[in-house]
Amino acid sequence: MQLFHNDYNEMCHEAVLKKMVDYASFQVNGYGEDEICRHAADLIRTSCCDESLDVHFLVGGTQANLTVIDAALRPHQAALGAVSAHINVHETGAVEATGHKVIPLASADGKITAEQIDSALITHWSDSAHEHIAQPKLVYISNPTELGTVYSRQELEDISSVCKKHGLYLFVDGARLGYALAAKGNDVTLADLARLTDVFYIGGTKVGAMFGEAVVISNPALKEDFRYLIKQHGGMLAKGWLLGIQFEALFEKDLYMQISAHADAMADQIRDTLHSLSCPFLVDGITNQLFPILPDHVLEELSKNFTFSEQERVDPSHRAVRFCTSWATKQENVDALCDALKKLL
Amino acid sequence: MQLFHNDYNEMCHEAVLKKMVDYASFQVNGYGEDEICRHAADLIRTSCCDESLDVHFLVGGTQANLTVIDAALRPHQAALGAVSAHINVHETGAVEATGHKVIPLASADGKITAEQIDSALITHWSDSAHEHIAQPKLVYISNPTELGTVYSRQELEDISSVCKKHGLYLFVDGARLGYALAAKGNDVTLADLARLTDVFYIGGTKVGAMFGEAVVISNPALKEDFRYLIKQHGGMLAKGWLLGIQFEALFEKDLYMQISAHADAMADQIRDTLHSLSCPFLVDGITNQLFPILPDHVLEELSKNFTFSEQERVDPSHRAVRFCTSWATKQENVDALCDALKKLL
Amino acid sequence: MQLFHNDYNEMCHEAVLKKMVDYASFQVNGYGEDEICRHAADLIRTSCCDESLDVHFLVGGTQANLTVIDAALRPHQAALGAVSAHINVHETGAVEATGHKVIPLASADGKITAEQIDSALITHWSDSAHEHIAQPKLVYISNPTELGTVYSRQELEDISSVCKKHGLYLFVDGARLGYALAAKGNDVTLADLARLTDVFYIGGTKVGAMFGEAVVISNPALKEDFRYLIKQHGGMLAKGWLLGIQFEALFEKDLYMQISAHADAMADQIRDTLHSLSCPFLVDGITNQLFPILPDHVLEELSKNFTFSEQERVDPSHRAVRFCTSWATKQENVDALCDALKKLL
Amino acid sequence: MQLFHNDYNEMCHEAVLKKMVDYASFQVNGYGEDEICRHAADLIRTSCCDESLDVHFLVGGTQANLTVIDAALRPHQAALGAVSAHINVHETGAVEATGHKVIPLASADGKITAEQIDSALITHWSDSAHEHIAQPKLVYISNPTELGTVYSRQELEDISSVCKKHGLYLFVDGARLGYALAAKGNDVTLADLARLTDVFYIGGTKVGAMFGEAVVISNPALKEDFRYLIKQHGGMLAKGWLLGIQFEALFEKDLYMQISAHADAMADQIRDTLHSLSCPFLVDGITNQLFPILPDHVLEELSKNFTFSEQERVDPSHRAVRFCTSWATKQENVDALCDALKKLL
Repeated sequence: MQLFHNDYNEMCHEAVLKKMVDYASFQVNGYGEDEICRHAADLIRTSCCDESLDVHFLVGGTQANLTVIDAALRPHQAALGAVSAHINVHETGAVEATGHKVIPLASADGKITAEQIDSALITHWSDSAHEHIAQPKLVYISNPTELGTVYSRQELEDISSVCKKHGLYLFVDGARLGYALAAKGNDVTLADLARLTDVFYIGGTKVGAMFGEAVVISNPALKEDFRYLIKQHGGMLAKGWLLGIQFEALFEKDLYMQISAHADAMADQIRDTLHSLSCPFLVDGITNQLFPILPDHVLEELSKNFTFSEQERVDPSHRAVRFCTSWATKQENVDALCDALKKLL
Repeated sequence: MQLFHNDYNEMCHEAVLKKMVDYASFQVNGYGEDEICRHAADLIRTSCCDESLDVHFLVGGTQANLTVIDAALRPHQAALGAVSAHINVHETGAVEATGHKVIPLASADGKITAEQIDSALITHWSDSAHEHIAQPKLVYISNPTELGTVYSRQELEDISSVCKKHGLYLFVDGARLGYALAAKGNDVTLADLARLTDVFYIGGTKVGAMFGEAVVISNPALKEDFRYLIKQHGGMLAKGWLLGIQFEALFEKDLYMQISAHADAMADQIRDTLHSLSCPFLVDGITNQLFPILPDHVLEELSKNFTFSEQERVDPSHRAVRFCTSWATKQENVDALCDALKKLL
Repeated sequence: MQLFHNDYNEMCHEAVLKKMVDYASFQVNGYGEDEICRHAADLIRTSCCDESLDVHFLVGGTQANLTVIDAALRPHQAALGAVSAHINVHETGAVEATGHKVIPLASADGKITAEQIDSALITHWSDSAHEHIAQPKLVYISNPTELGTVYSRQELEDISSVCKKHGLYLFVDGARLGYALAAKGNDVTLADLARLTDVFYIGGTKVGAMFGEAVVISNPALKEDFRYLIKQHGGMLAKGWLLGIQFEALFEKDLYMQISAHADAMADQIRDTLHSLSCPFLVDGITNQLFPILPDHVLEELSKNFTFSEQERVDPSHRAVRFCTSWATKQENVDALCDALKKLL
Repeated sequence: MQLFHNDYNEMCHEAVLKKMVDYASFQVNGYGEDEICRHAADLIRTSCCDESLDVHFLVGGTQANLTVIDAALRPHQAALGAVSAHINVHETGAVEATGHKVIPLASADGKITAEQIDSALITHWSDSAHEHIAQPKLVYISNPTELGTVYSRQELEDISSVCKKHGLYLFVDGARLGYALAAKGNDVTLADLARLTDVFYIGGTKVGAMFGEAVVISNPALKEDFRYLIKQHGGMLAKGWLLGIQFEALFEKDLYMQISAHADAMADQIRDTLHSLSCPFLVDGITNQLFPILPDHVLEELSKNFTFSEQERVDPSHRAVRFCTSWATKQENVDALCDALKKLL
């Protein structure tokens, strides 16, 4: 069975594992207060072209989301996000469990617009009963989104502007960030993210690491006491240097971008094959996630040799499904999948 | 200025005030553990035809909603409600502040259906990743709804059945319950509510009392330790007998139903007038809230003598607004409003 | 039976009730946004000699405590208070339910000192692992305390200074504030409280009102969005003017101080009687609460005609109990109690 | 510098790392739903002599504590623990952040007794105002405790009995469990823990693993929906099999007990040396943590070559400090430390 149902089915890139083994006999201080973490943070600051950034290493994405949002909001404040946002649908109400409402905005492709945000805020403040309504204070977007789409630099500039206008924090969930940055057609850089957001994170779990997300904070208000919040939410890894090692490996020699580009290239091959077969897509994307709409009988055949995840039923005989590539995807597996698709469609 | 913008702009019915004055010189035990509260609870049990019910008196509606829902749910569980549900839009995220997600269901008229609930639960449990999704465990409906509509007995039977099928609690917010029970065309009784729900409340604040909501619990699982939760959420009134006095006054001689019927009759006069003038409505209703769609210039004229609340803009020259009657609405004020409408339309 | 077990067993002072009746036929805007509340707030600002104060009327003490503390703290921050603080022992974990730890400081008489606070903060910040410890950010004191003791002006000055030194908020729970302000030997005024604290409240429930606490905020950081927090915690009374009426009555003609002085005078008579009978006390106090240590057999006799509350067992044959007077205590009842004590001791 | 200040300064045992490398090229399903985790859980069930246990692998101790306690308690319920309990002092209020009070019980050596628990519960339920007090529902103990002491089997039996008597859950934090189980003088087994508790966890982070704690649940009420709570609190590792691998390595060939015994033996050597030098201890213990009381000048000398952690000042010239050994402690380092102690004392 060849696994395409998500992008976290392999342990880690060999360079990450090698570095892990290299450090195995060291004695290191705990809780991320060590030289390895400091070096990894420096590498990320350099990649972001901003030496003033705070960098914290957390274990996973839900943990990063709930910790950042809880750190940013007062009790009556809420996060705005796409109706399909990971925090709205796939984190078991983790943000609500910290006491905060997630206010969903309509979205067909996983993205939201500066206009939607502006409109939501104008509506809030013009309501004479606004004190009876959760106050929007943070905008959450994913890049790439849960549907594999990416924001252009202009879109991020616009969202950033409207956030500044209304005093909102802008937070970018980058669980799959590499796959956006390395995608053909993308024009956003890490430096753009550092410049345009208040806080974002660089996903490691899905991009070459065993686990780990690097939270990057530019807004001083969000930097204060952030480590207390990590600890309180159970996210302070005793052996924090395990995270430092992995991000050191990923950011030392541009490995993060290289392996992301590989995943995107693998996805492009499948995408091109599907396009050439006139297969429709639920959403068009340029990253490592593909959402083709396929006949049930084709999916049944495919499922004998390949895994994919279910997205939604489109009509009585067709479903949209998700295929993911990753840093670990092998050419031979992509070839096998493309061959199978050609045979079946 | 004659106030029609909501139904809590008068202190209380004279019988409530008189009884308050009558009790003024008594010494009474605190925290609702007194004879007056016990008597008021007995009166409500009798009205509900069920001696096994637990009755607790709380000060207000948001407090009742957040206390009941927090008492009912484990941390990962969520409340299902209409997208327009009071808990979803007008309580500053109070339910989320207790840690629980509110999952909105589409609704044009403020009501949700048994089918919607069934479908939501089937979707949840059939998702292989359901542990990543907040688990629906309680259904919240308002009767009448925030849009003035009411549930029929059959609709409640159906919703109750589907809740039992899926192990969900059914909770009815009755902030304006009297105005539903007394409405022409309603076929639901207090006994029906006690029989079909796990918990509901009888609103006093908007129906003749100074303040106060009587929470009625039939499900034993929800009865346990409920007073701890009232206290924890700041809802345990030191002089609890103030609530007992008011519900005693409202339920001793059927006053609750009489004054509710008055409000509905007053609303019916305005509704009939608007119908006779061919005025369209945002939502049809039978209770004390009316949502006519009126031209801006008419609203401007009306606003010189009458208050109403804004609902939504319908087109560039028309808005839906809300007029409320209440137990305190005077015939002369209704006449004045109807005359004004006839003159302007 | 004559009730001395607490100070909230009577409805309200007659002037409060009279004003309530006077306003009964008015139409007033909801949620505390009305002229009566504004006037009551003005009266309080004047009493505090500070026109810049924000004044909010809440229904009860636990509600006031949890709302203020939740508004003031970020998630990782904690409140410091005496081990006997109401928030630590008698609010069903209400503060913890908003996510915040209460850090108890040792106290024999219900008070804490500037030195204790200073020491706690120095300990916190000098711990290299302070990020693993809840961060003290607010000092909670009650005045009078739960044991009937009061803070002197100098003590408040010292506590205020140490709070400023460490960037802590100072919050005074004034559920029984009148009984402190009117006590013989007290040198603290409302103006002192407004000047030395960041936020405090003036208790109405136990001092002449039916219910209601006036939260007075001087620190601008705590003023922001406070009404959102009131609403979110279920504390925004729909008919907010009911609170305004009561505080108007209490602060119009110095009634609050007059009735407080009455309660203290009644307590002084009982205290003097007990002293003259050489009765020991658990704690010495000057307000309306007395904590004499009495033989079990005396308490048994007393309990036939008087109520009191249990405090703690002192030795196999003696218990400390609590007698409370209030604004409503009658001279004849005090006489009866003193006579009984003289007969039994 | 030789590190003795804690027991998590080395990456992991070589067998753990080797197995990690062995699995590196596999494709595995996410979120702990894989064969490796199932096998590791089976090994633990076998070690606990109970096939009915649920086993969940979490990343760290604070995460395990807050998730278990939040899963177990209703909102008004509290955890009882020693005043020195990790959840009370070193988790940044993580339990309170889930809404629950930690009620501290006095303890000189880190342990609490069945009598203390019994007394706390009798006090709670006999208080007529118990609804105003957080309700104790769970007992939290650490074994070994934060002060290196261990519970005997009889003590656990007694605590378990009193918990059953009062309907309390018993939860054992086993962050350093191996060092208790392998200690000379210990008579408690994993099977005892499974039999006597409702839930406990087996610490990996401090006992040979890179990270990871195995939560073992015997009480069916705590089993229900536990994975939802893991996810909600950000504890569901995407590549859950990383945890399975480590516990497989630790439990396949009794490695967990062997390496724990090594750490205890290393500690015994230091302990014996200190005893032979007549050094007093803050607390006597038998596990890998030692709390000697040493003169400041000795500590200053020692600190040039060895790390230790500060515990508390005992008198103007002496401090209690903590030395930790671990699975990774080398004989040569212990020898060096013992030699230094002999020279300095």
